[in-house]
Amino acid sequence: MFRTAELGRKVAKDDFDAAASALRIEILELQQKLRQADFATVIVFAGVDGAGKNQTINLMNEWMDPRWIATRAYSQPSDEERERPEFWRYWRDLPQRGRIGLFLRSWYSSPVLDAAYRRIAPAELDARLDRIAAFENALAADGTLIVKFWLHLSHKAQKRRLKSLAKDPHESWRVTEADWQHWRMYDQFVAAAEQTIIRTGLGHAPWTIVEGEDPRYRELTVMTTFRDAALRHLELRALSRNNREALLGNGGGTSSLAPHAAGDSVTDPAAAAIRVLNQSQPSILDALNMTKAADKATAEAEEPRLTARLNHLYRAAKEHGLTSVLVFEGWDAAGKGGTIRRITAAMDARDYQVIPIAAPTDEERAQHYLWRFWRHLTRAGRVTIFDRSWYGRVLVERVENLATQEEWRRAYAEINHFEQQLIDHGIVLVKFWMNITKDEQLARFERRQAIPWKRWKLTEEDWRNREKWDLYAEAVNDMIEKTSTRLAPWTLVEANCKRFARLRVLETVCETLETALAHSAELAKTRRKARRKGGG
Amino acid sequence: MFRTAELGRKVAKDDFDAAASALRIEILELQQKLRQADFATVIVFAGVDGAGKNQTINLMNEWMDPRWIATRAYSQPSDEERERPEFWRYWRDLPQRGRIGLFLRSWYSSPVLDAAYRRIAPAELDARLDRIAAFENALAADGTLIVKFWLHLSHKAQKRRLKSLAKDPHESWRVTEADWQHWRMYDQFVAAAEQTIIRTGLGHAPWTIVEGEDPRYRELTVMTTFRDAALRHLELRALSRNNREALLGNGGGTSSLAPHAAGDSVTDPAAAAIRVLNQSQPSILDALNMTKAADKATAEAEEPRLTARLNHLYRAAKEHGLTSVLVFEGWDAAGKGGTIRRITAAMDARDYQVIPIAAPTDEERAQHYLWRFWRHLTRAGRVTIFDRSWYGRVLVERVENLATQEEWRRAYAEINHFEQQLIDHGIVLVKFWMNITKDEQLARFERRQAIPWKRWKLTEEDWRNREKWDLYAEAVNDMIEKTSTRLAPWTLVEANCKRFARLRVLETVCETLETALAHSAELAKTRRKARRKGGG
Repeated sequence: MFRTAELGRKVAKDDFDAAASALRIEILELQQKLRQADFATVIVFAGVDGAGKNQTINLMNEWMDPRWIATRAYSQPSDEERERPEFWRYWRDLPQRGRIGLFLRSWYSSPVLDAAYRRIAPAELDARLDRIAAFENALAADGTLIVKFWLHLSHKAQKRRLKSLAKDPHESWRVTEADWQHWRMYDQFVAAAEQTIIRTGLGHAPWTIVEGEDPRYRELTVMTTFRDAALRHLELRALSRNNREALLGNGGGTSSLAPHAAGDSVTDPAAAAIRVLNQSQPSILDALNMTKAADKATAEAEEPRLTARLNHLYRAAKEHGLTSVLVFEGWDAAGKGGTIRRITAAMDARDYQVIPIAAPTDEERAQHYLWRFWRHLTRAGRVTIFDRSWYGRVLVERVENLATQEEWRRAYAEINHFEQQLIDHGIVLVKFWMNITKDEQLARFERRQAIPWKRWKLTEEDWRNREKWDLYAEAVNDMIEKTSTRLAPWTLVEANCKRFARLRVLETVCETLETALAHSAELAKTRRKARRKGGG
Repeated sequence: MFRTAELGRKVAKDDFDAAASALRIEILELQQKLRQADFATVIVFAGVDGAGKNQTINLMNEWMDPRWIATRAYSQPSDEERERPEFWRYWRDLPQRGRIGLFLRSWYSSPVLDAAYRRIAPAELDARLDRIAAFENALAADGTLIVKFWLHLSHKAQKRRLKSLAKDPHESWRVTEADWQHWRMYDQFVAAAEQTIIRTGLGHAPWTIVEGEDPRYRELTVMTTFRDAALRHLELRALSRNNREALLGNGGGTSSLAPHAAGDSVTDPAAAAIRVLNQSQPSILDALNMTKAADKATAEAEEPRLTARLNHLYRAAKEHGLTSVLVFEGWDAAGKGGTIRRITAAMDARDYQVIPIAAPTDEERAQHYLWRFWRHLTRAGRVTIFDRSWYGRVLVERVENLATQEEWRRAYAEINHFEQQLIDHGIVLVKFWMNITKDEQLARFERRQAIPWKRWKLTEEDWRNREKWDLYAEAVNDMIEKTSTRLAPWTLVEANCKRFARLRVLETVCETLETALAHSAELAKTRRKARRKGGG
């Protein structure tokens, strides 16, 4: 989940200055629009110590008119506060319609701390996060714009940051013993953070994870995210105010809104500059070492060995009733089909099914978009391989404008919830993103075109998709950020070399199955022991 | 919560026939509209054994074209089903867009049974209900119309029903030993049902509690509720489809919908007849014995005694840091003010505050409607008395069309959630509905008009509200159905006799405080014991 925020994204000073001067004006104008609006804005800052939460809040107050902004930071509840229900102090401080509230060490602070310090169990954390979700839900239903930033640093970057702060005589007061203590508990914090972000990152109150190390990158990301969310919300509220009037019978029913108000903003110079800036940032895919390769000799030695190992493991899984679901996503021509055939070669045809996902059938279109994946879940012990999957919702449907922003944003939570149910049921879930570079794709397209019996594989659509490479890369990055969880991580496969990719996939499937089998054997042993102890 | 479904509501055969013949045609036409619609309809039946779930489902299939309806009933999961995640079988059976699915012994069945049999703790029930809410939420977000009926019988009525079924040779097969077992566990089932309805009765998937004893009343209620929900949903979807097109940039933005499509239906003869029929049903208020009175001698003896008792109790509560919140709602001229003065007479002015709730101030209007109630929560040990309250949302705002149907329907869950937070914090919450008859109100209005120094109390608005008596009665009935919970019950006060009402209120406040104090003393004792045991 946080790998996308450990890429070392940076913005040069000149680039920042050029973008910021225009953006600042835009943000200030936006604040004026928000002042006229019939909703309040709540911005939450959370994340790793030292990732720049305070500085970002200071910047927001600097860029905007602070008279209409209230900044709230919370520490241990006072006597006054302890005598009221937990959320009283947050309700009290909510901004009015037209105002902006910046919240630091907010309602997220104590659940995350308690979980990281293991003072509460994961189930108790869930229960507390649900109360938060209900709180935010009530605000969102009332029209409030909620924007949440999780500022992240890698373990190493946090150490660097704390050290450099401690050295600076003007800043050293910022670094406390608690910060170092938290740094040592980094993994526990990350686990609590992940659970928090998944559970409360609902469509109406989404989290944006921001890499915190480079201040210019961080500030630009926070500001543009806020800008985009606010413009979108103004547009949505105009539509829903209209509906509301119609429902109350006060006339209305036609939109007074210029269409594409949010879209328009892209054409103004500041927005365009920043978009380019953001797109030139490394995505999670750029961090892959795409030169990885396997030579022919290695592959010829390894592949039969891995195939045999997989055959052995899949039969053991079948015997134990352990079901597997393998998901393949990737660029066009990334070699999904060939890789899948290497896997199925290790299995008996009765025991697996390959589900190629193209445009939905009529019957599928008549259902919820997840329905067609639910229907393909198999009986215990089988293997289901999805060639493309439910992730189409946040990839092709997003890029091709087949789903609204609300629909695909909501989908991350829906997908996490769906996969959670698979995992809770004991299903082994493995997700692959087959990655190739843009050049390698071109080479493969051209090779296909040259070979008569492969030409059918290449369609007009493939060329069209290729033109949208950057938009897809952005969508893939977001997908990995939001759906690569500890229990259902994405495996990113460097697939410029097909041999390497196949070995990597075979190996990953084998290892995952091995771990799952060991885990299930251990469970069975514990149960047997419990039965013997029970005397029955 | 279920008291509103134990009123013995009935429909005479002639009335039923007159209404049903027109309603049947309307429902059939409605099904045709739903077939063209871009959403599916899910209708869930749950409730007490013998309350007529099967018969209602049969009727729905009879009244509509069964080719476009699928009826699903579930028992223990099969091997096939157990090998997949719990919700797989429900996903599989979801109706397509344009179709209707009737669900019996659905996803609610096993959580409620497990809770009633005490196989799971309340917290575990909550967790399972949250999974259901997430499932229904995903469907609703996709546009699905969800209508849920909880068919209810009182303990006595269930016994009568099971006996009469058992006697009938054609029906006796319906009654099993399990039914009788459940009847003996009635209270456990009611507790589980209440938790279920509160936790899952969200705005997009509301429950309707239906009194099940009289088949004609039950059938008419289910059919009209379904009709109203479907018409409303068709209207909402037309608006949101419009928005969606606008957001996707496919043109749109103006409503193709005739305004007030749902409202219009009220003017057609069937709807009008049924509305009258439903409105002539006893509401929970009609079930009150409004002749209750206290003579002057009793009141003069009792009131000082109760005042002294309240004084003693409120001081004990203050000492223990026990906070109280008293809510007064009621008809205009029902005597709220005078009753509140009797309570405050027992207390020191520093220790209580009376909050009269009228139209919100500008500052309050600029916030979520619950904000102004949060802000009035006091420090520990104080008493806050609300003269009118957050229930305005589902009373005056509903009746006067100041909130949309979506807004006030959503409010029941929001209010329950708000009150739950008060209770979880240990606050003593007492809610009074001061009830007078329509005649008594008229008499009081006329008396006020006659007395010069009381005339100011009577406004034009009072007369206008009086004209909407039936609409208010319906709103009060719904409010009590949806917000009178075991932990935060409504006390309905027969207030035609002011003396009686005041004694009743004083007594209720005293009793509630007494119970809470005893409970808190017990808690403190347990804690002391635990400390001693802990050796510290």
